[in-house]
Amino acid sequence: MRTTVLRPCKNTVLKGGLLANRADVAREKMIPYQWLALNDLVPDAEPSHAIENLRIAAGEKSGEFRGMVFQDSDVAKWLEAVAYSLAAHPDPELEAKADEVIDLVARAQQPDGYLNSYYTIVDPENRWTNLAYNHELYCAGHFIEAAVAYYEATGKDRLLQVVCRLVDHIDSIFGPEEGKKKGYPGHEEIELALVKLYRVTKDERHLKLASYFVEERGKQPRYFELEARARGTAESDHWGRKGHAYSQAHLPLRQQETVEGHAVRAMYLFSAAADLVQETGDEELFSTCEKLWNNTVNRRMYITGGIGSQAYNEGFSTDFDLPSSRAYAETCAAIGLFFWGHRMLQINPDRKYADVMERALYNGILSGMSWEGNRFFYVNPLAVSPEVCSSRKDHEHVKPTRQGWFTCACCPPNLARLLTSIQHYIYSCGEEGLYVHFFADSEVKSAVGGNSVKLRQRTDYPWNGRVQLELALEQPVEFSLAVRVPGWCQQASVKVNGEEIGDLQAATVKGYAVLTRAWQDGDRVELDLAMPIEKVYAHPKVQDGAGRIALQRGPVVYCLEEIDNGPDLHALVLASDPRFQLEMDPELQVPAITAQGYRLEAAADELYTRIPPRSVPVTIRAVPYFTWDNRRQGEMLVWLRSAGEA
Amino acid sequence: MRTTVLRPCKNTVLKGGLLANRADVAREKMIPYQWLALNDLVPDAEPSHAIENLRIAAGEKSGEFRGMVFQDSDVAKWLEAVAYSLAAHPDPELEAKADEVIDLVARAQQPDGYLNSYYTIVDPENRWTNLAYNHELYCAGHFIEAAVAYYEATGKDRLLQVVCRLVDHIDSIFGPEEGKKKGYPGHEEIELALVKLYRVTKDERHLKLASYFVEERGKQPRYFELEARARGTAESDHWGRKGHAYSQAHLPLRQQETVEGHAVRAMYLFSAAADLVQETGDEELFSTCEKLWNNTVNRRMYITGGIGSQAYNEGFSTDFDLPSSRAYAETCAAIGLFFWGHRMLQINPDRKYADVMERALYNGILSGMSWEGNRFFYVNPLAVSPEVCSSRKDHEHVKPTRQGWFTCACCPPNLARLLTSIQHYIYSCGEEGLYVHFFADSEVKSAVGGNSVKLRQRTDYPWNGRVQLELALEQPVEFSLAVRVPGWCQQASVKVNGEEIGDLQAATVKGYAVLTRAWQDGDRVELDLAMPIEKVYAHPKVQDGAGRIALQRGPVVYCLEEIDNGPDLHALVLASDPRFQLEMDPELQVPAITAQGYRLEAAADELYTRIPPRSVPVTIRAVPYFTWDNRRQGEMLVWLRSAGEA
Repeated sequence: MRTTVLRPCKNTVLKGGLLANRADVAREKMIPYQWLALNDLVPDAEPSHAIENLRIAAGEKSGEFRGMVFQDSDVAKWLEAVAYSLAAHPDPELEAKADEVIDLVARAQQPDGYLNSYYTIVDPENRWTNLAYNHELYCAGHFIEAAVAYYEATGKDRLLQVVCRLVDHIDSIFGPEEGKKKGYPGHEEIELALVKLYRVTKDERHLKLASYFVEERGKQPRYFELEARARGTAESDHWGRKGHAYSQAHLPLRQQETVEGHAVRAMYLFSAAADLVQETGDEELFSTCEKLWNNTVNRRMYITGGIGSQAYNEGFSTDFDLPSSRAYAETCAAIGLFFWGHRMLQINPDRKYADVMERALYNGILSGMSWEGNRFFYVNPLAVSPEVCSSRKDHEHVKPTRQGWFTCACCPPNLARLLTSIQHYIYSCGEEGLYVHFFADSEVKSAVGGNSVKLRQRTDYPWNGRVQLELALEQPVEFSLAVRVPGWCQQASVKVNGEEIGDLQAATVKGYAVLTRAWQDGDRVELDLAMPIEKVYAHPKVQDGAGRIALQRGPVVYCLEEIDNGPDLHALVLASDPRFQLEMDPELQVPAITAQGYRLEAAADELYTRIPPRSVPVTIRAVPYFTWDNRRQGEMLVWLRSAGEA
Repeated sequence: MRTTVLRPCKNTVLKGGLLANRADVAREKMIPYQWLALNDLVPDAEPSHAIENLRIAAGEKSGEFRGMVFQDSDVAKWLEAVAYSLAAHPDPELEAKADEVIDLVARAQQPDGYLNSYYTIVDPENRWTNLAYNHELYCAGHFIEAAVAYYEATGKDRLLQVVCRLVDHIDSIFGPEEGKKKGYPGHEEIELALVKLYRVTKDERHLKLASYFVEERGKQPRYFELEARARGTAESDHWGRKGHAYSQAHLPLRQQETVEGHAVRAMYLFSAAADLVQETGDEELFSTCEKLWNNTVNRRMYITGGIGSQAYNEGFSTDFDLPSSRAYAETCAAIGLFFWGHRMLQINPDRKYADVMERALYNGILSGMSWEGNRFFYVNPLAVSPEVCSSRKDHEHVKPTRQGWFTCACCPPNLARLLTSIQHYIYSCGEEGLYVHFFADSEVKSAVGGNSVKLRQRTDYPWNGRVQLELALEQPVEFSLAVRVPGWCQQASVKVNGEEIGDLQAATVKGYAVLTRAWQDGDRVELDLAMPIEKVYAHPKVQDGAGRIALQRGPVVYCLEEIDNGPDLHALVLASDPRFQLEMDPELQVPAITAQGYRLEAAADELYTRIPPRSVPVTIRAVPYFTWDNRRQGEMLVWLRSAGEA
């Protein structure tokens, strides 16, 4: 199989630009805000009770468990975000707070290593009896991810020890060996966490357990039915209604050909599968991942990188079924797709993965948070009418404005942990060189073939397609600098020290311009990505894209908002040959697009008439999708009708 | 107020054509089929248990009640259909069967007049304690309608006596008088039935009770909350979720300005209100009806005459919210709209009501049954993808093919009773003359100003716009013959004895060509309604109509089916200047439309691309909407994308 797996370069610092701004907001606003939320100190927001649950589980307070069965995971994800934040921005006060939380978690751990505040408080006799619903392994996974991140950030291993004891306990309960339960989590997460743990501990049992959970899933007899019967419940209403595919347990993973069920669960499972491929080189498993990747991104993904097209299962329906206003497109699912893509990219450095990661990041992920970082979307639709949302049951899941917190508060901490570690995703190192996957004002220090390499990237991406890379080397080093030319870009040029590469195509491998030479200190590479405003078409099988276009510039998908265009956005039509113009939005401080168009106005008061509606010329204005709902609540629309499209 | 109220001419016989065919199918197929269904003799269909319930209630069998709480109403609607059928086509065997059923109903009646098999069998102590949900008054209403119809058809008054005793009982329980309950039905129906009963009995108490039920609804304190508290339930989850508007009980009727809630309930209430206007001349109530009519037909009605745009409340959402594939558009609701329109038309002979009735009849009502009359749609969507229906929870209510029977089997018997009496709706008499509202090969005998008038109408409507009317008079009679010129028609001519009316517009009052003269025996009126194939536009506020047209010819709306056009109907586009052609469909034996168009085909396998899809020329074929799903199951689409629409 492929000889090398790339290593993400974590020694990266963001210097400025959009991602740095979002990471700053995550550190300065979201982490403190979420701390308040976890401690029930945010007025007008759903109380979390998550810290309180741990105190009760630790026997230090009395009271009842409150919140979701997976409430612990919000604390874990907060700790993980804090770890990334501390690595980039040391903060003794925050670290002390995190240490206290870790101590609390340690005290909530039971003598046998078990850790889960729900079962410890509510139902200690019935641990591990309801994997399908009750998320014990999921919470364990998030504690493991937090522990690894905190260890890597601070060198402190208290939480790592806690989760190692927890994993020992889990390993004593589950596995292929006789006498152990043949279970696997209802909500995947622990699988990828165990691979992370293995990479720190080098304990083969950790990798083996991850592999067991991935491979056992979906086998006959179905574990979720066995455990339901053991509990004395029928085969469960749940499985009858949503089916085993809800948890990707309808078939063994290697037999799955389409992405099914709950979108976040699917993404975490597939991420773990890619992790296993990285560790084991399993070609068959990679080909399973590849098949599922293609189905996901070519059949079941919104143009925003959002996935999950219905609320019912928080997940997938069928190929090309991507309704705009009833999208689920959970923030966490887009983040999960980003995680999975990143793992695939390290195995197979093909820009196709990075293109999808970028699509998700600049659209369906960043849309999940307000500019201020204190309001969040769980669901990220591509068309919103507040009136329809409030009058139709089938739009009940769609909030027309971001919320302060959620009963099921998975998305805000997931955003926080992604954004505080976003710099880890920009560069990778391989044996032959350094990969530049993404564009952000940043600096990376890495070792390439035993030599220390420092690279400074200067750019205002995604608002501008010019990217400058400058090397700082102690001595000349021969290596390949592989710079991604994004799939969205039709016209790119690359200069090395001011001289343009003549045949860029010939130098490009899987969408990366591979520049191999003996690099000198101070060498400069300039990338110029033409970034016109473009009309993007959906596949004709996508119903809600028929006769419509989306406006995109660079990786950023645009949308129309009522505040700019008035109500009834669906009555607007882009002119057949619009003159697109870019202007800075004075409030959002991002580039807005204007173009000629028409508004259809009724020829009569009647609902149905032979008289075509009148076309009134208007200027259509679009803003980046991820910035919508930051000014005033109202309608929003991505797929815009366009004149002159057949 | 308006001086006259028109009287429908029930002495009408259908001679041929589409409506006669549908009425024949109702008589020959649906009534026998439904008789089998009511007796649980249809294989592969949901058992009804309706007749069995009555036997148990009569104490003649033992067993449990089964079916919906309103299962009795299916029997009542069947009896009503049988009555209309017997009036037009005497059938001693069927009449004997109906007499037996009526005897059974009489035996199921309790000594105090109470009649309801559910409560009699299941919960006799708790009659009249749950009007909101349990449909006792609704079932009573259907028995009353059946009794009136049977009495008028056969002169037999056994069922009429039963319902008069039942009404006496109800009148002793409910009403404004002290000591009586201030209740009203959760599902309206008895109100209009009581007016029908009053017209036969002339008993003022019947009219008064109808008026009481209509006027009491929606007053404070809310009766449904009072009765829920009296039962010891909380104010009820039900009202919390769907609100009192579900049963039009959010406000007193006279304060309602928009049509809300369950569509069938609303239609029956408004029909009763119009009935009261007919009896009392209440101007304010008429103006309420008018306001609600306008909201219904100009804001909340599908082009098929279907109403109710969501499954959740089987009803209305908000203005202009008319999604095609998630329509509810229950067959019963379109029938209810037809009933209401007919009542409005008798008060105010304006074609606007008849236009809507016709729209509903030839589209959203007839679509409810298969050609054979043995398969039924409850929900009548305007776009169907079987794959989406089976993979999306929010399409769960949409069946992509007609069903044999339903757990809630309201629609098939409603179709039967409408179609067996459809001839009653064609003509009305007023003081000044005879109105021809609808076009169907038929003959009517009526008395106009004391003179006997016979009119023979010859036409192949709705497939052809030529209509011949011929009078048979014993002596010359001066009266007005008012012939509707339908709103869909842009070019009409009227000839009297071969001579064209020069200024038709001047002779037209509210859409009726009023021909006043001393008519002679053998006088002929010819109406020629130009019936081109036309593109119809939805109001630009209707999202699913944006950029689309519907094909309509005469009153008949057309649709595309997969069997004629292949899959992915949403990828088809009508050419900007299509040459429409009409051809007889060899299988359906109705006129089909063909036109030039395009099919969009993917330029790439990717979901999103800058390359516009390719346009491949195709011939688009459309068939009458009401005939869809009579050949092969597949996709269906009404609102078609159209090139050249801005």
